[in-house]
Amino acid sequence: MREGNPPETDPPVRKGAPRWIAGVDIGGTNLRAGMVPYGGGEPAAVVSAPTRAGEGAEEVVARVVEMIRASMEAVGAEGGGVAGVGIGAPGPLDRERGIVTETPNLGWREVPLRDMVAERIALAVATENDANCAAYGEWWLGAGRGAERLVGLTLGTGIGGGIVLGGEIYHGASGAAGEAGHMSVHFAGRRCACGSNGCVEAYASGPAIAARAVEGLGTAGDTSLATLVSEDPALVTAEAVCEAATAGDGYARGVLEETARILAVAVANLIHLFNPDVIVIGGGVAAAGDLLFRPLRAEVSRRAFRSAAGACRIVPAELPETAGMIGAAAVLKRMLHGSL
Amino acid sequence: MREGNPPETDPPVRKGAPRWIAGVDIGGTNLRAGMVPYGGGEPAAVVSAPTRAGEGAEEVVARVVEMIRASMEAVGAEGGGVAGVGIGAPGPLDRERGIVTETPNLGWREVPLRDMVAERIALAVATENDANCAAYGEWWLGAGRGAERLVGLTLGTGIGGGIVLGGEIYHGASGAAGEAGHMSVHFAGRRCACGSNGCVEAYASGPAIAARAVEGLGTAGDTSLATLVSEDPALVTAEAVCEAATAGDGYARGVLEETARILAVAVANLIHLFNPDVIVIGGGVAAAGDLLFRPLRAEVSRRAFRSAAGACRIVPAELPETAGMIGAAAVLKRMLHGSL
Repeated sequence: MREGNPPETDPPVRKGAPRWIAGVDIGGTNLRAGMVPYGGGEPAAVVSAPTRAGEGAEEVVARVVEMIRASMEAVGAEGGGVAGVGIGAPGPLDRERGIVTETPNLGWREVPLRDMVAERIALAVATENDANCAAYGEWWLGAGRGAERLVGLTLGTGIGGGIVLGGEIYHGASGAAGEAGHMSVHFAGRRCACGSNGCVEAYASGPAIAARAVEGLGTAGDTSLATLVSEDPALVTAEAVCEAATAGDGYARGVLEETARILAVAVANLIHLFNPDVIVIGGGVAAAGDLLFRPLRAEVSRRAFRSAAGACRIVPAELPETAGMIGAAAVLKRMLHGSL
Repeated sequence: MREGNPPETDPPVRKGAPRWIAGVDIGGTNLRAGMVPYGGGEPAAVVSAPTRAGEGAEEVVARVVEMIRASMEAVGAEGGGVAGVGIGAPGPLDRERGIVTETPNLGWREVPLRDMVAERIALAVATENDANCAAYGEWWLGAGRGAERLVGLTLGTGIGGGIVLGGEIYHGASGAAGEAGHMSVHFAGRRCACGSNGCVEAYASGPAIAARAVEGLGTAGDTSLATLVSEDPALVTAEAVCEAATAGDGYARGVLEETARILAVAVANLIHLFNPDVIVIGGGVAAAGDLLFRPLRAEVSRRAFRSAAGACRIVPAELPETAGMIGAAAVLKRMLHGSL
């Protein structure tokens, strides 16, 4: 809280009580930081910057700390009132030691992210996998608020997964649980970057959707994507497929429907195993809305058991832009406070 | 304990302290009941009888109660010392009300199993899904003793699954969690009885292994299974495939290896999602031992992430015959006692 000059609209606050948590989302392309209200809410004073991971962890951490400071200043919290910093980062983390063990997206190995940030900012710092943060953010304040059992999927460059059981992120034996994107839905299927075959990520991530769209053009009829690919194949992105589908392009709709049906196999598998109350689907492709969710839900109904499917809402994320920051802040709050 | 005439080898027991739990395993083919020591151990005085589910639930329950009484008598506990009855039954159960909602294997619907047994025997009764019981038995006293996160698979007429997290069976939102047999590992694969495609059960259950073995005979070279099928196709069972493989039959070994590789896809998926400490595999086919487990583990290594695969033992069940009774008894004990 701004010392000496509280805005008149502020509720009365016990001196020194934390008002904010800094939430940070380290993505392969962009960094984002914002001030998440301690009691929960959309982050204020969000700042973002390109990640430029190639410059190395030291540079990126310095930039993250600058961003946190700028965000704190923007809400008038540079003098106090910030409980700490929650950071979501891609790839597996050693949570005990706050170390990013391996991040293909960033090219980092064994980076002691937590301590590097804490040394520069003198606040408590918690680190967590980014897909877990997104799921936890949706659990705390989004589409799966308070659900006893939630599975989150984020469709992006890859497919991230996060599992929340009884209000806690489920980490598994080595902190690697919830890797739903690498669930194989076709044992002899498309090769995945991870070395396995048929991972749902190899069909339904952004780049995989684009690749499948281009591959199918040879036998496609009239489609705007054919024009696009003749200009520059790189223009056929998942976003372009979604846009064409929304504009009524039949071929693009077919690609999205096939994507939905394959994604539904993974979703039905998750229902068979976790019997969750809610599955929250976020990320760029989820923005296709009903063009994705309608065929997805239909195929899930065909595959999952009635009682389990009936118990599970399958919904788009409510915080697609901010769930990562909010979830990272929630991880910090739980660490310090024991509850949310 | 036998009143008035305790065997000299008995430890001193506080008067009225329970010594036994009746564990019951209701299978599609056979019923089994035995007296599980209250502190844990192999069931004593196991009795079994054909299920004959077609005679109806009343008849079967009457037979189960007779079997429990016979088993109690055999250990001298007819006068007391039995804490209650734990029953494992196939299919989804309404655990709150102790009702078997639907069992394709038994042909029952909405049978109030718990109360039907309790009315006839005047003991506390707990009911639980049979695959959950098998997993819980292996967690309490078997191959996954005390593991923080355990997944159990039972390869039989179908493939059952059970998940134990933090010492408790994970039930999910509607009691239908852990249905690992219906995880699809090929979205356009073999049709499953459940209506979906590519369920691992459609490849690696006993009948599915037998069917795949027969289907492949057309292009197979010299194999003892060809002789068997010419006598009577029904002789080609999963057991016959395992026996032929053990005897060195190359074709039968190939069928088992393919089974192992497909099963490995499901196991790797479970590792990606649950990151468990142990996966326990039981049931008839697991008796093939290294012929199954060696190719299974190799394929899991290829597909799962190193840290998660390294954290997970993949082991055969230690209590293949009795885990169901032991796990059912454990469910009863937890219900009454709060812990094991």
